[in-house]
Amino acid sequence: MRIIGKQEVEDMAVGAAVLASGGGGDPYIGKLMALQAIEEYGPFEMVTLDELDDDAWVCASHMLGAPTVLVEKVPNGLEGIGAVDALEARFGKKFDAIMPLEAGGLNSLLPFQVAAAKGVPIVDADGMGRAFPELRHVTWTLFDVPACPAAVCDEKGDTVVIEAVDNEWAERLARNVAITTGGSVFMADYAMTGAQAKKTSIPGTSTYCEVVGRTIREAHEAGGDPIPVILDLLKGKELFRGKLDDVSRRTVGGFVRGYAHFEGIEGYHGRTCEIEFQNEHLIARSDGEVLCSAPDLIAVLDAETALPITTEALKYGARGVLVGIPVHEHWRTPRGLEIAGPRYFGYDIDYVPVEER
Amino acid sequence: MRIIGKQEVEDMAVGAAVLASGGGGDPYIGKLMALQAIEEYGPFEMVTLDELDDDAWVCASHMLGAPTVLVEKVPNGLEGIGAVDALEARFGKKFDAIMPLEAGGLNSLLPFQVAAAKGVPIVDADGMGRAFPELRHVTWTLFDVPACPAAVCDEKGDTVVIEAVDNEWAERLARNVAITTGGSVFMADYAMTGAQAKKTSIPGTSTYCEVVGRTIREAHEAGGDPIPVILDLLKGKELFRGKLDDVSRRTVGGFVRGYAHFEGIEGYHGRTCEIEFQNEHLIARSDGEVLCSAPDLIAVLDAETALPITTEALKYGARGVLVGIPVHEHWRTPRGLEIAGPRYFGYDIDYVPVEER
Repeated sequence: MRIIGKQEVEDMAVGAAVLASGGGGDPYIGKLMALQAIEEYGPFEMVTLDELDDDAWVCASHMLGAPTVLVEKVPNGLEGIGAVDALEARFGKKFDAIMPLEAGGLNSLLPFQVAAAKGVPIVDADGMGRAFPELRHVTWTLFDVPACPAAVCDEKGDTVVIEAVDNEWAERLARNVAITTGGSVFMADYAMTGAQAKKTSIPGTSTYCEVVGRTIREAHEAGGDPIPVILDLLKGKELFRGKLDDVSRRTVGGFVRGYAHFEGIEGYHGRTCEIEFQNEHLIARSDGEVLCSAPDLIAVLDAETALPITTEALKYGARGVLVGIPVHEHWRTPRGLEIAGPRYFGYDIDYVPVEER
Repeated sequence: MRIIGKQEVEDMAVGAAVLASGGGGDPYIGKLMALQAIEEYGPFEMVTLDELDDDAWVCASHMLGAPTVLVEKVPNGLEGIGAVDALEARFGKKFDAIMPLEAGGLNSLLPFQVAAAKGVPIVDADGMGRAFPELRHVTWTLFDVPACPAAVCDEKGDTVVIEAVDNEWAERLARNVAITTGGSVFMADYAMTGAQAKKTSIPGTSTYCEVVGRTIREAHEAGGDPIPVILDLLKGKELFRGKLDDVSRRTVGGFVRGYAHFEGIEGYHGRTCEIEFQNEHLIARSDGEVLCSAPDLIAVLDAETALPITTEALKYGARGVLVGIPVHEHWRTPRGLEIAGPRYFGYDIDYVPVEER
């Protein structure tokens, strides 16, 4: 068990936004909510998967919807708790620990606030090792853990408990609740035992996010350029450096969809690069050539600060270093590529690991 | 307690379609499902509100969605049962009786099939005394009975249990589940005690439907014109006779919306009449003059057979007798008009009872 205080939260927010591949919600809102929860409940307790009892009862906690919406519809802090309460009522028993669904500015940190309010520890693991657009894009789906019963809660306290025939229908039903209630909701789902969690989750994600964030901070403090250090840490690859000269974002069907177009700078002069996204960055192409595609991660780092820029914050004139990061090996299996590879997202290309491109 | 056999079902289907004001689902599908249930479970048992114990536990059972969809997406018979099962699971106790939500070809008869499958009687009452477009358009709302917890079930077996902050949000959330799963779902909701049901429901609706249907049948058998007999029975008023020369139907937002335009025949030559509908007929106007508006009922009866024509069955060339029928007095109160009067449906007119127009 490890204690997570304010500095750890600050670092985690930055690292989670890097691993979020552009999505996962505004890291600033996630950080504020977590810091406020520390004020209210004291520092968080975080346990590793190994420290979980095999018969512990855990669930995932997260926001679902379009990150663009969250910037205007800031959570009131009760939605995540309401969702876990509804799921506990459905099962008639309490959860022993709460687990993040994905790495993301908001979705990495929100579960800390929920766990603290429920008086249980957070698990240092998640179901993605990055962020993905859909509820079923988790390693738990790869291991046939059902998302349902899944509880949804909105900011007014409306709750909906979904028991869908599969994780695909769970996604559709939950997404439409989000659309109905204004574009974002909070959920509790993927209830499982400690034994299941150990077998099916990606371990150590929160700590990994913290290390990434700390590395960026320390490189700054040492006065150096954090980008080579991050690339080294994440085994990532610089894809492009450019100035954003066009961005299109539509909030449609409960997602934010669009593209960002960059004009090359610093050694990339005369070239352009375009990223397409559905909440998360899905593909980066330069003058017809694919540089990186899902399920590998594509992060846009601010060229000056090395801080990640999420899809809803991409702006004209931003100077970004585009980085490709290899995804966890769970996603490189045939089953993983089936539900999160380029063809799933509508791109008619074969997946090639970013380090081999 | 009264036994409901095949003849009663046949009559009820016709009468319910008259009282449905154009909506409530295809009476042919409702009748087939009820007749099949009699084959399977034997004749139905129907109890009056008075026969219900005060501490009996009852709920409403109904379809929700666009009636146009049901014509192509015929129910498999398990949806209504699945919804009641889910609501029983939510409360942890069984219902003692099932009640229709509204009068309508399908929504009057479907609950008989559900009650038979659950082995409990049906209650001779409903929450509308007619059909209305929305889940919250029930006298139960007027008496502050919550729709939630409300259970939704689709044809695949997906279930969703909604606990909304009010009946308006229950409607929105349920409607969007219907849209997500193809345009129609089945529900169980408005769980209440026998004492509450007695105080807040419209009594005798099923028997009333049966009487209306039987009256039409017997007038036919006697070789007479059923229409004057029905008008007399329902205290209704002939509004217009016409040939349908234009109809527009869009299935949008989980409703069927549109209008039907009639050219006058038999004493109405040279005049026209237009009905607008949202699942149910909402307003009838002739050359600028309002003939009848919600919450009063507007039925289109086939000029030859006197059988009701529902909104999804309106066709070019149909010869119809348009009939206005006074609604139950519950709907003529200020609160009733607030949620089901002309202004609620977007018509900037004051409500005038059809018998006073």
